[in-house]
This record gives sequence, C-alpha cells and structure tokens, in this order.
Amino acid sequence: DFERALEEVKPAFGTSVETLDSYLTHGIIPCGETFDHLQRTLSVFVQQVQDSDKTPLLSVVLEGPVGSGKSALAAAAAKNSDFPFCKVVSSETMAGYSEQAKASQIIKVFEDAYKSPLSVIILDDIERLLEYVAIGPRFSNVILQALLVLVKRMPPQGHKLLIIGTTSMNDVMESMGLNEVFNVSLHVPALRMDEMVKVLRHLDCFSVGDIPEAVNLLTTVNSKVVPMKKLLLWLEMARQDVQDGQKLSLERWEEVLRELS
Amino acid sequence: DFERALEEVKPAFGTSVETLDSYLTHGIIPCGETFDHLQRTLSVFVQQVQDSDKTPLLSVVLEGPVGSGKSALAAAAAKNSDFPFCKVVSSETMAGYSEQAKASQIIKVFEDAYKSPLSVIILDDIERLLEYVAIGPRFSNVILQALLVLVKRMPPQGHKLLIIGTTSMNDVMESMGLNEVFNVSLHVPALRMDEMVKVLRHLDCFSVGDIPEAVNLLTTVNSKVVPMKKLLLWLEMARQDVQDGQKLSLERWEEVLRELS
Amino acid sequence: DFERALEEVKPAFGTSVETLDSYLTHGIIPCGETFDHLQRTLSVFVQQVQDSDKTPLLSVVLEGPVGSGKSALAAAAAKNSDFPFCKVVSSETMAGYSEQAKASQIIKVFEDAYKSPLSVIILDDIERLLEYVAIGPRFSNVILQALLVLVKRMPPQGHKLLIIGTTSMNDVMESMGLNEVFNVSLHVPALRMDEMVKVLRHLDCFSVGDIPEAVNLLTTVNSKVVPMKKLLLWLEMARQDVQDGQKLSLERWEEVLRELS
Amino acid sequence: DFERALEEVKPAFGTSVETLDSYLTHGIIPCGETFDHLQRTLSVFVQQVQDSDKTPLLSVVLEGPVGSGKSALAAAAAKNSDFPFCKVVSSETMAGYSEQAKASQIIKVFEDAYKSPLSVIILDDIERLLEYVAIGPRFSNVILQALLVLVKRMPPQGHKLLIIGTTSMNDVMESMGLNEVFNVSLHVPALRMDEMVKVLRHLDCFSVGDIPEAVNLLTTVNSKVVPMKKLLLWLEMARQDVQDGQKLSLERWEEVLRELS
Amino acid sequence: DFERALEEVKPAFGTSVETLDSYLTHGIIPCGETFDHLQRTLSVFVQQVQDSDKTPLLSVVLEGPVGSGKSALAAAAAKNSDFPFCKVVSSETMAGYSEQAKASQIIKVFEDAYKSPLSVIILDDIERLLEYVAIGPRFSNVILQALLVLVKRMPPQGHKLLIIGTTSMNDVMESMGLNEVFNVSLHVPALRMDEMVKVLRHLDCFSVGDIPEAVNLLTTVNSKVVPMKKLLLWLEMARQDVQDGQKLSLERWEEVLRELS
Amino acid sequence: DFERALEEVKPAFGTSVETLDSYLTHGIIPCGETFDHLQRTLSVFVQQVQDSDKTPLLSVVLEGPVGSGKSALAAAAAKNSDFPFCKVVSSETMAGYSEQAKASQIIKVFEDAYKSPLSVIILDDIERLLEYVAIGPRFSNVILQALLVLVKRMPPQGHKLLIIGTTSMNDVMESMGLNEVFNVSLHVPALRMDEMVKVLRHLDCFSVGDIPEAVNLLTTVNSKVVPMKKLLLWLEMARQDVQDGQKLSLERWEEVLRELS
Ligand SMILES: Nc1ncnc2c1ncn2[C@@H]1O[C@H](COP(=O)(O)OP(=O)(O)OP(=O)(O)O)[C@@H](O)[C@H]1O
Ligand SMILES: Nc1ncnc2c1ncn2[C@@H]1O[C@H](COP(=O)(O)OP(=O)(O)OP(=O)(O)O)[C@@H](O)[C@H]1O
Ligand SMILES: Nc1ncnc2c1ncn2[C@@H]1O[C@H](COP(=O)(O)OP(=O)(O)OP(=O)(O)O)[C@@H](O)[C@H]1O
Ligand SMILES: Nc1ncnc2c1ncn2[C@@H]1O[C@H](COP(=O)(O)OP(=O)(O)OP(=O)(O)O)[C@@H](O)[C@H]1O
Ligand SMILES: Nc1ncnc2c1ncn2[C@@H]1O[C@H](COP(=O)(O)OP(=O)(O)OP(=O)(O)O)[C@@H](O)[C@H]1O
Ligand SMILES: Nc1ncnc2c1ncn2[C@@H]1O[C@H](COP(=O)(O)OP(=O)(O)OP(=O)(O)O)[C@@H](O)[C@H]1O
Ligand SMILES: [Mg+2]
Ligand SMILES: [Mg+2]
Ligand SMILES: [Mg+2]
Ligand SMILES: [Mg+2]
Ligand SMILES: [Mg+2]
Ligand SMILES: [Mg+2]
Repeated sequence: DFERALEEVKPAFGTSVETLDSYLTHGIIPCGETFDHLQRTLSVFVQQVQDSDKTPLLSVVLEGPVGSGKSALAAAAAKNSDFPFCKVVSSETMAGYSEQAKASQIIKVFEDAYKSPLSVIILDDIERLLEYVAIGPRFSNVILQALLVLVKRMPPQGHKLLIIGTTSMNDVMESMGLNEVFNVSLHVPALRMDEMVKVLRHLDCFSVGDIPEAVNLLTTVNSKVVPMKKLLLWLEMARQDVQDGQKLSLERWEEVLRELS
Repeated sequence: DFERALEEVKPAFGTSVETLDSYLTHGIIPCGETFDHLQRTLSVFVQQVQDSDKTPLLSVVLEGPVGSGKSALAAAAAKNSDFPFCKVVSSETMAGYSEQAKASQIIKVFEDAYKSPLSVIILDDIERLLEYVAIGPRFSNVILQALLVLVKRMPPQGHKLLIIGTTSMNDVMESMGLNEVFNVSLHVPALRMDEMVKVLRHLDCFSVGDIPEAVNLLTTVNSKVVPMKKLLLWLEMARQDVQDGQKLSLERWEEVLRELS
Repeated sequence: DFERALEEVKPAFGTSVETLDSYLTHGIIPCGETFDHLQRTLSVFVQQVQDSDKTPLLSVVLEGPVGSGKSALAAAAAKNSDFPFCKVVSSETMAGYSEQAKASQIIKVFEDAYKSPLSVIILDDIERLLEYVAIGPRFSNVILQALLVLVKRMPPQGHKLLIIGTTSMNDVMESMGLNEVFNVSLHVPALRMDEMVKVLRHLDCFSVGDIPEAVNLLTTVNSKVVPMKKLLLWLEMARQDVQDGQKLSLERWEEVLRELS
Repeated sequence: DFERALEEVKPAFGTSVETLDSYLTHGIIPCGETFDHLQRTLSVFVQQVQDSDKTPLLSVVLEGPVGSGKSALAAAAAKNSDFPFCKVVSSETMAGYSEQAKASQIIKVFEDAYKSPLSVIILDDIERLLEYVAIGPRFSNVILQALLVLVKRMPPQGHKLLIIGTTSMNDVMESMGLNEVFNVSLHVPALRMDEMVKVLRHLDCFSVGDIPEAVNLLTTVNSKVVPMKKLLLWLEMARQDVQDGQKLSLERWEEVLRELS
Repeated sequence: DFERALEEVKPAFGTSVETLDSYLTHGIIPCGETFDHLQRTLSVFVQQVQDSDKTPLLSVVLEGPVGSGKSALAAAAAKNSDFPFCKVVSSETMAGYSEQAKASQIIKVFEDAYKSPLSVIILDDIERLLEYVAIGPRFSNVILQALLVLVKRMPPQGHKLLIIGTTSMNDVMESMGLNEVFNVSLHVPALRMDEMVKVLRHLDCFSVGDIPEAVNLLTTVNSKVVPMKKLLLWLEMARQDVQDGQKLSLERWEEVLRELS
Repeated sequence: DFERALEEVKPAFGTSVETLDSYLTHGIIPCGETFDHLQRTLSVFVQQVQDSDKTPLLSVVLEGPVGSGKSALAAAAAKNSDFPFCKVVSSETMAGYSEQAKASQIIKVFEDAYKSPLSVIILDDIERLLEYVAIGPRFSNVILQALLVLVKRMPPQGHKLLIIGTTSMNDVMESMGLNEVFNVSLHVPALRMDEMVKVLRHLDCFSVGDIPEAVNLLTTVNSKVVPMKKLLLWLEMARQDVQDGQKLSLERWEEVLRELS
C-alpha cells in the first residue's frame, strides 16, 4: 500500500526535486546560531510529522525581509525530509493564470499530497500567491480563502502533511488572518555584521584581513543588516572583473557598492 | 412515514457521522463548570426541538477565540442528539468553489434537512463560509444573504430543525446582522489556569506535582488564557521525544514553549 | 370580466393563503391601544383602495425593531382584506437567486397583481429583499431601483393595489429614498411593560398574581421593551418542562432568562 | 417630406398621448403666479423651437421637491405643443432592465425623434433613470454618459427637438455635470399657504369659510410648504367617508392629518 | 504614392468635412487678440507638422470653460489645414457604446490616420470620451490608457499627425496624467466685456449705442465673463419675437436675461 | 546548439532593431558625466550577464521625469549589447488590448527570451504597461502580478537575461513593491544648465556666444531643469522658420518659449 502510494506520486516528486534545487543555487552557507536554530526547528517539525500519530498536520510560516533566505531554508528542509511527496506552490509557475486557475492548481497540489503517506508542501511567497498589492489594497480573496481552509484541513486518516509557508509581509498575513491558521511562525532575519563576516569567510573571496573592513563598507553604504541574497548578488558583481583564484580588493568592492546604491 | 423519512436521509447521515468524529479527535475532556454548562445548554436545545410542538426551529451560535473548542462542542451535541439528519456545513468541503456554488450547496443542505422529521445542521466557522477577510472588508454577500434567510426560515409543517453555528469573529457577525437571526448566542472561552490544570490532570502527561508549574510556565510564555486546541498541540509536540508511559519533564516543556513562541 | 379576473389569479391566491397563515402562527394577541390602532389604520387603507375611485394605488410601510410583529400585522391585514389577489414577496422563497432573478420575480408579482381588480402585495423584510448589509454598505441596486419604481407605478385603469412593506431598518430605507416612495409609514414598537402584562394574561401561562413579577424579571434581565416574537419564544422555552395545564413558576422563568441572555 | 415624417412617427405618437394623460390625472389646477410663469416659460420654449431656425435644440430641466408637479408640468407642455413626436422616457416602462438595455432604449427614443421635424422628449425623474442611490453613491454611468451626450447632440439638419427633464435631486444633477448640459433650469416649488388656499377653493371640498383653517391645520401638522401631489392624496383620503356633494369637515381633516403623520 | 494615400483616405475625409462644419454653425466671430492669438498658434502647429521633418507628431490641448469655443477653434484649424485626413473623435457618434467599443473606434481612427501622409485628429470633449463623472470619481480606464498611448505614439516613417484635444476639465486631465502627454496646452477663456462688445457689434443685433448697456445687463445678471456659446444662445432667444431687420430692444434683452437665470 | 537558438529567435530580433531605432531618433547626445555614468553602468550590466556564470538574471530600472531620456538609454544599451534576442515591451503595440491579453503578451516575450542564450528585455514605461492612473488609484493587478513574478524568475539553466525597465513614477513603483524586485534602480535626471549648454553646442543651432543666454531664457521661462525630450522638441519648433544653415536668433527663441508656456 505504501509502495503503491509512492508509485503514484513519483512523477510529481521527480519534477519537484529540480525545483527545490533551483532555490538552493548558493546552498546553505553556515552563518551562525540564528540560522542553525531555524534549520533545527524545521527538522524537528519534519520528525514530528513523520513519527507522531496525533499530529497528521503541521504548518509553519517563515517570515522575514526580502532575500533573507526563507525560500532556501524551506527548500532545504523539504529536501532533507525525504518525504515521498514534496511540492513547491509558487506563483512563478502560474504567471498570467486567472485567480480561479491559481486557486484550483493550489487545491490540486494539496489533493495530490493527501494521496501520499508523507508529504511536504511549500507555499512560497504567500503574498505573491495572493496577488497582494499594498495600493488598494488588492489581493485575490478566492486564493486567500482557499489557503485559509487548506492550511487547516486535516489530511485523510493515516496520511500526514507538513506545510511550510514563506512571506516577506508578515503584517499583511496578520491582517488577513493567515498567521492564525499556521501552527507556528518563525522569523528569518537579514544578516547582522558578525553573520556577514562568517559568510565572507566561507566564500573566501576577500583576503581574511580585509573582511571586517569589507563588512564595514557594506553596512556604511547600506543599512546595518543586509539580506543574504543581496550580499551574494553584490559579491557576484564585484567579482566580475576579478580573475579566478584572485581575491577581491576593497577598492573594487567600494566602487561597486557606491555604483549600485 | 417517519421510517421512510429516515430511509431517505440515511446516506447523508452515514457520511456525516465520520465528519462529526473528525471534529472530536481528542474527545471532550472535562474541564470544569463553564464547559459543562455549555454542553448542558446545547442538550436542552436538542430536547426542546425534539419535544415542543411550538418550536420547530431553534438556532444557536457558539462564539469564542480560535481553537477554544467551538466545533467540537457543536459536533458532540449533534452526535448525542441521535437526530436522523446531522450535517456539517464547512468550507473545508467547498475549497475553491465559487460563492454561488457554495451558497447553492448550503441551501441544498437545508432543503435536505427539511425532508427529515428531526435535523441538526452545524454551520462551522461562519466567517470562513462567508469568505470574510478584514482587509476591505470583503465577504460573499451572496452567501451572507442566504444564511440570513436560511437561519430564520421555518421548516415545513411537522419538521423540526436545530441550527448550531460557530464563529471566532463575533463582532463581524454582529456588524453583518447575523447575530440577530440566531435565537441564542453562547460564548466558548479559552481555558483559564484552573481549567488547564484539569485538562493536564486528565491527560496524565505530567507528574501530578509538576502540573501547577507546567501551567505557570505556559501562561508566562503565552497569555493568561490558552485555547484548548493550542494546549493540546503543544503537549503533542512536547511529548514527541518522550517514551510511552513516561511523564513529560518541566525542562522539555519549557524548551518547547520557548521554541514555538 | 371581474369573474374572469378572479379566475385568472386563483392559483396564485391559493398558495398565498397558506403563506399568510405561516406569518400568524401565534395569531394576533390583543395587547392594547397601540396595536389596535395599527390594525385599524391598515384596515382603513384596505377600505380606501376598495372604495375610492381616485386612489388606485396606496402604499404603507411598517417599520420597527426585529420581531415586533410587522409581518404578522401585514399578513393579518391582507387576510382580512378578502382581495382576490394577495401575495407576499419574501426573500425566503428566493434564497440563492441572483439579484436579477429576484428583481424579475418581484416585477412578475406586480404584473400579476395588475391583472386582478383588487390586489394586496406584502413586501416583507425589505432590507433582506435588497440584500442589504451594513458593512460596505452593500445591497442590490437592481432590486432597489425596481422597488423604487414599482411602489410608485400606477396599476392600469380600473385596477387597484395596496402595497404593505415591512422593515426593521428604517434609517436604511430613508438613506435609500425608499421611505419617500411609500405614501405612509407606521411604527410597530416592541412591547412596553403594560403590554407584556396583557400578553401574559391572554396566554394564561403564569398564575395571575405572578404576572407583574414575571414582566419585572424579564425587563430586568433584558431591556425595558421586548419584541413580541422574543417574548413568545422565551415563554415556549420556559414551558418546556412544565406539564400541560400547569402554570409556569417564577423560578423556572428566571432560570431560563438567565440562561439565554 | 413633412407629411412622410409625420406618417413615420405616428404610432409612437399614438401611444404617448395616453402616457401624457396618465401624468395629468388631476389636471393642472390654477394656483398662482409661480406656476403660471412656469407654464408660460415652457410654452415660450415650445414656440422658440418651432419658429427659430437657429435653435434646432433646446433643453430645460424642471427641478423641485418630490411631488411638486414637475412631471405634470412637463406633460402639459408637451401635450400643448402639438408636436408630431412626443415621448416620455421613464423608468416605469423599464423596470428590471439592465443599464445597457435602458441606455439603448433612451438612445432609441432620441433617434426616433430625429426622424420627426418637431419633437419633444420628456426625461422623467432623471435620478431614477440613472438608478441613483445616495448610499455609495451609486448610479449607472452608462446611462449618465448617454444622457450627457444626448442632451447636447444636435438633431440632423432641418429637424428640431425640445428636451424637458424632471428631477427632485438638483444637487445630484449638479455633481454629475448634468445641469450644465441643459440650457435652462427651472425650479418647481412646493405650495405656499396662499397657493394651497387657491387649490382648495378650486377643488371646492371645504366650506369656503373653513379653508384658511384647513390650510392652517395642514401646515401645523406638516411643514410650511406642501407639495401638490401630497395635498391631493390627503384630500382624497379625507374625502373617503364623505358622501358625494357634502363638504369635508375640519374635524375629519384633522383626524386624517394626525393619523398619517 | 502620395496620390494613392490620398485616394485611400478620401471617404473618411468626405464625411468629416460635414462634421467640422457642424462645429462652426456660427462661424468664428472676431473678438479680439486672445482668440486671434489662439488661431495663429494653431495654424503654426499645422505648418510645423506639414513642413518639419523632425516633428512627425504634434499634440495640443485646448482647455477652458464650457461653451468657450474650444471645439469651434479646433474644427476651424482642422478645416484650414487642408490635410487629406481630418477626423473628429467625439462621444456624440458613440452614445451607448461599451467602453471597449469606444476605445477600439478611437484606435481605428488613429490607425486610419497613419495611412495618410498628413492628418489631423480632433479629440473632442476628452472628459466625455473618458466617460468621466466627478462622483466616485468614475471614468473608463480602458479609454484613458488608449489615449495616453495614442497621443504619444509616433506615426510610421514619413507620415505626420497633428492631434487637437478639447476639454473643460483641465484639473481632471492633470490628475490623470493626460496633460503631460500633450506637447502644448492652450487656454480658451470665456469672453470679457470688451470681447462681448466686439461680438455684439459684429452680429449687429442691437443699436450701436445700446451695446455697452446690453453687455452691462448681461454681466450684472450673470457673471463677469460669459462663454461664447451661451451669449449666442441667449441672443437667439431674445431675437425670437423681433422682426427681421429690426434691432433688439434693451427691455426685451433684460426680460430674457431675468427669465432664464 | 547556440546557432540553432540564434536561428529560432531571428525573426523577433529583426523586428526589434527597428523598434530600438525608433527610440533613438535624436541619438544619444553627449551631455556630461551623469549620462556617461548611466551608460557605463548599463554596459557593465550587459557584460556581467554575458560573462558571469552565477548571474543568469539581472534587472535594472531607469527612473526619472517624463522625457529625461530613459527609453533612449535603455534602447542604446540593448542595441550595443549585440544579444541575439532584444525586445521592447511597450504599451504602444498593445493599445486597446484587454489586461489579460497584455499580460499574456508580456509573458510570451519572456518565454521567447528564455529560448535564446542571451537576451535583453526592455519594459518601457512600466506605469503605462500597468494601466496606472492616480485617480482611484487604478491599475491592472493582473499585469502587475505578472511583472512581479517575471522580473524575479530565473531563465532556464544556461540561458541569461537582462531586464531594463523605465518609469517616470518611481513612488508608484515603490508602493507596488515593484522596485524591490529589480536588482538595481538608476535615476535619469532632467538636464541641468551646464548639460543644456553641452546639448546646444552639440546641435550647433545657436551662435556659440548666444548659448548661455539661450539656456538662461529657457530656465527663466520654464523650470531650473529641463528634460532632454522637451528641449529637443522646442528647438525643433523654434527652427521652423529658420533657413537651413542659419543659426537661431535669441528673439525667435524667446518668442517660441513664451508662446508655448
Ligand atoms: N544560511 C542560508 N540561509 C538561507 N539561504 C542561504 C544561506 N546561505 C546561502 N543562502 C542562499 O541565499 C539565497 C537566499 O535566497 P532566497 O530566495 O531563499 O531568499 P528569500 O528570503 O526567499 O527571498 P525573497 O524574499 O525574494 O523570496 C539562496 O540562493 C540560498 O542558496
Ligand atoms: N471540553 C472540550 N471542549 C471542546 N473541545 C475539547 C474539549 N476537550 C477536548 N477538546 C478537543 O479540543 C479540540 C478543540 O478544537 P475545535 O476545532 O473544536 O476548536 P474551535 O474553537 O472550533 O477552533 P477554530 O476556531 O479553529 O475553529 C478538539 O480536538 C476537541 O476534541
Ligand atoms: N398583536 C400582535 N401583533 C403582531 N404579532 C403578534 C401579535 N400577537 C401575537 N403575535 C405573533 O407574534 C409574532 C410576530 O412575529 P413577526 O414575524 O410578525 O415579527 P416581525 O416584526 O416581522 O419580525 P422580523 O423583524 O424578524 O421580521 C407572530 O408569530 C405573531 O403571530
Ligand atoms: N398646477 C399644477 N401643477 C402641477 N401639477 C398639478 C397642478 N395642479 C394639479 N396638479 C396635479 O398634481 C400632480 C403632480 O404630480 P407629479 O407627478 O407631476 O409631481 P412630481 O413633482 O413629478 O412628483 P415626483 O417628484 O414624485 O416625480 C399631478 O397629478 C397633477 O395632475
Ligand atoms: N471666435 C470664436 N471662437 C470660437 N467659437 C466661436 C467664435 N465665434 C463664434 N463662435 C461660435 O461659438 C460656438 C462655440 O461653441 P463650441 O461648441 O465650440 O464651444 P466649446 O467650448 O467646445 O463648448 P463645450 O464646452 O460645450 O464643448 C460655435 O457655434 C462657434 O461657431
Ligand atoms: N544623452 C541622451 N540620453 C537620452 N536621450 C537622449 C540623449 N541625447 C539625445 N537623446 C534623445 O532624447 C530623446 C529622449 O526621449 P525618451 O523617449 O528616451 O525619454 P523618456 O525619458 O523615455 O520619456 P518618457 O518619460 O516620455 O518615456 C530621444 O529622442 C533621444 O534620442
Ligand atoms: Mg523567497
Ligand atoms: Mg472550529
Ligand atoms: Mg418580519
Ligand atoms: Mg415626477
Ligand atoms: Mg466642445
Ligand atoms: Mg520613455
């Protein structure tokens, strides 16, 4: 029976692994206790869903600033779960769909998940799924109502489901009552200076002695905290003219920073 | 005639019993006078509908915070009624439907009920049935108007109907004129400290001596009152690593509480 | 010609009498001058439409709090009129219809009425016909515009029509310009203490000596005035455990009052 | 050519005369200079359209309180014009139509008029044509835009058109820019005391000596000014029990006034 | 090639000349420097489009109070241009169309113009094209977006286009960003007293000596400035009873002024 | 493989070059460091996308006042890129389309781009693509949501994409969350006095000695800074009557400036 269930969900699974990887282009770079704790908590949830008979459904939402690493953390947790059904619900695959079509597709993913004994569904960028925009404000109530129901709906007897949502608009989630339907909410912050130091060390693109000054420059030109994704993009840009194997100079770094902000 | 009526509604009845049970996964744990009184009042209503010739229609709404046990109380009352027709109207079975389709389905349930001599209909999570969201605010006026009429509409001569609604948005109900169409409104509160003690004793997961401190920790980390469903979820999570038969330690309990809030 | 007109409208008439009765389950209990005067005024209108050649159209709206007896008074007046065409326009028979369908049905009733020499149409619960809800506020402008026109439209030469509307939202009616299209507006109030005494005496469910105290309890627990329908429901509930022929005790009465409010 | 044009529009004309009469059930009762002047001004417009070569299009709007006699004045002017094409555009004949259908019908009337050498179109109760309601506010912009264009659009070479609009919502007309498209706007007031005296004398329903007191009673119970239509309705009601040929007593009059307000 | 282009657009041209004339029923009466300057500026634009190779597209909007002569000035400039393609885009020919249909028709006119070597398009009464109404405010965003694009869109290589818009709602134009897409905006004012004197002299309807007093009366009864169209209408009305060849008396003039305002 | 990809996108490419040129009718006139820096930054982005393996997607938005040269800068960068796929997404080619059709077309362009190894897409006048208007405000959420997703969506493995947006409503972009999805935002300002001097020198239309005074006149009549496009249009107009080879006089210049503002 379990076998057959596995069989049934394979094709969906196949496509999804690639999707998960696309969220992990830079992998998960170790950057201190905050992120380690986030990863551990997520893996406890995975365990809980797998083991406990009384929690067939668990839902957690990762919220934090744009680019802080929410989608990557969700994807990594899903990948590590080894659950037979893993699926990312993302607006990227539904661009241009009507709200009804989007809602149907989301419901379809949940109904596919119910067929698998163990499933994880990532609701990526929930405000985007909802077609939210602050002017108005506007959003798709059709999709919102579907999510409000789906996140609370128990999978059928003997089936288990972990739901991981991500959002950079926690206040919007709250005003829509969406936070309330998730069992737990975790904050994914932008990087503090000490965490940036760790990332730069790991990436080995500056001479070790330059790293504090590099971080210093970054937080002077920008703000005190910097989201992971922004940091990685800027490094990439600065490394442009640098030959392989060579380190990035502080001059080049400062130049790029000034140019882009 | 009564027999035939019973016959007619059986299939509907059959499916519904399972539904009722799905609202009662943890049963009804005794936790003091407030909840006992709620249960008694509901059973008086059941009796009144069954016995009195002059009250063919009674409607009651259970309102209270998220997770306080409203749906479970409604389901228990319906189950104990032994009425031949019991049906839960829930948005869970209508995810993704258009508002017209939802309204039709709700009307259909009432019209099915009118065929049975004795019926109970649970309107679960009324704000969700209405697709309500505070931003805007938005909701389905089609469904609202249907409910405003259905809750007041007399069943045909010789047929009797009990309607139990649940909601965690009492103020919304009022501003929509929905409270006015229900004959009675009952408040289902979150658990006070003494009530949590009763629940923990009943569940027997802490050493008896630890229970006051366990409740203390809970209300310190959280708020003074805790909804039943939240308490049960957290216990489940804390019990995760605890072996069967063993009690939960206060350390593990505190750890889980801090992690999740 | 009159005969044929009668013939033509018979089926409609047939169904309607039952409807009228369903608004009069407790009959019209005598409760003092205010209600007597309301009944008399309505019967004068009936007479005026029947007799005068210069008033082929008269319209009156009964407004007052929820449950004050508006629909019953309208139904009683219609029943006593003995007009060959009597019809109640109520949202109860149109639950789930689109606003266009509701408007069409309402227009249809008026056009049927124009075929009868003498007609009375009850527009019951006008705010419900309009699908009104205070949040927004929202309502069906299609239906509103139809009503604004229909209530003022003259029946064809030689035909006469009395329109009786009911509403518990007089201020809404005014802000919609609906009051202005009715010729007369009458207020149906909730019962004062002396009127409640009359009702309790008539129903003979308390010992005569207990009645003042019963009313006293009621207005203490509730408000100073109580709508007729609420009073009748609570009496019904209190009488539940009382054996036939026996009077209701003040203790039982107080218990029920406390339980339900 | 003129003959053929007359031929062409005859059927429309035929139906319209009846409609005009239905606005004149009580005729035009003489009641002083204000109304005489209104009638004269309207007849000057009729003359101007008929005679002048340089004014092929004239538009006038009659505005004033509900029931002041606007429609009757418009109908009388149209009837006296003896123009071969006279048509009333009224929401009464379009109840339940969609706004598009209403707009089309209105446009149709104008296009029919363009075929006649001399036409008069009455736009009766413009706010009702626009489906206006103060809550919102809401109205049909489709119909409004059609009117804004139609009232300014020149009839084809050699054809002439007089447009008479009526409205009891002058401020709404202004905020919609509708007043600006009419060439002239005339105010039709409710009756002052001296005008009511004239009306009562004309109708001869009170003893001459009673008339001042009758008017006095009316303005005491009501407001200082009373619209023509309201006065006529109340007289009709008061006359109910009075035998033919007999005068109305001041007692009966006072009774009716108190009953209805 | 030019010949063929001319051929192609002829039918459209044919109909349009009549349209242009219908905007010029009273011709362009000389009334001083302001209007002369407006006419000269417009003719410079015509020249610029015709001669310069670097300005294939020029757009100008005429804004001013209702009736100030905007449409007439636009029509005169178009007529004098002798461009092979002249077209007026006016809501008059599109009454009752859906906003999509209107937008399509407007786009069609521009695409027809692109086929002619030299074209002028008049966008008459832009707020009416947009179905604008201040309540709400409401307007057709479909049409607005089309205009915002069309007014800036270059005609194809070797083709040239002059766009003349008219509007009496300059502030609305601005808040919609429409002013910004026109290259130039010109103000067409109502007539000052000295300009009115010039018009009255030209029309020769008063004795020369009466003209100052006639203007005086006009600005006393009305406002200090009077739009051209209003002045012409009132003169027409006053001349009604005056025999051909005779002058208008100041008495008759005053009477008409008082009657109409 | 690369060859085939080139083949595949050729037709699209062909049409686009013409489009790019239409944005460069006046070419890029050198006018100082600000604009030079903008051009250099854009060409760095082109390089980055071409060379770096880790940045398959780069997005930059050019924002600045109307007519400052945003579209020209974007077009020049795209033209210089020599990428096999270059496409401008502009509302000019979609006038009158429904918002769904526009969204589909935009998505189509992105999906075509994904087939080319190297692509550049210009999203020209984003507020126009969004059908934005300040009144309301209104805009197409369908198109907005598509853009929010498309600008962040990674092209498939081995394909690279540069996105250049332009807008004159930076604040609107921000309130819609659109700025956040672009990697970088660059400001394109209106010309300062020294920059205007450079442009006038380059165009050689004034005697060298007159240039300072010409700029002086311009900034006196207008504002301190003037957008490139406006400056070029006015020069064109002033040059109208000037014979080829001759310089523009300051008198003629002043006259034109006064006439048009
Ligand atoms: N410790 C880490 N945690 C999260 N992401 C990391 C970490 N180390 C490296 N990354 C990389 O950082 C990037 C984080 O981007 P990601 O898309 O997950 O952010 P996000 O918060 O979802 O952004 P957005 O708000 O735009 O959705 C990924 O490419 C990921 O591989
Ligand atoms: N005394 C009790 N009363 C109610 N529920 C109880 C009680 N004891 C245990 N429970 C359990 O608590 C849970 C209450 O959850 P339930 O879904 O009824 O809450 P709810 O108020 O309907 O929540 P929501 O606001 O999310 O709809 C159920 O699983 C039920 O079995
Ligand atoms: N004197 C009376 N006047 C009106 N109703 C009476 C009277 N005496 C008894 N009744 C009973 O009281 C009830 C009044 O209820 P009814 O539905 O008419 O009130 P309502 O004002 O229409 O309520 P709602 O606002 O809910 O529409 C009816 O059952 C009627 O039979
Ligand atoms: N001098 C008069 N002027 C106008 N109407 C008169 C006059 N004398 C008698 N009447 C009668 O008064 C009535 C006026 O009603 P009418 O429908 O014209 O008013 P109205 O202002 O159009 O009302 P509403 O605002 O409801 O449309 C008609 O029946 C008309 O015959
Ligand atoms: N010097 C003039 N300039 C403009 N119009 C003139 C002039 N002299 C006479 N006219 C006449 O005045 C009238 C002006 O009306 P026109 O419709 O052009 O005004 P408008 O400003 O477009 O009005 P609206 O705001 O209603 O569109 C025309 O009939 C025109 O022939
Ligand atoms: N240095 C320059 N930078 C930009 N444009 C220039 C420059 N020199 C000359 N131009 C010309 O200036 C014009 C700039 O117009 P363009 O349409 O690019 O402005 P825009 O900012 O996109 O305007 P809009 O806000 O209306 O979209 C083009 O014709 C271009 O050829
Ligand atoms: Mg993300
Ligand atoms: Mg519940
Ligand atoms: Mg009622
Ligand atoms: Mg009227
Ligand atoms: Mg005009
Ligand atoms: Mg541009």
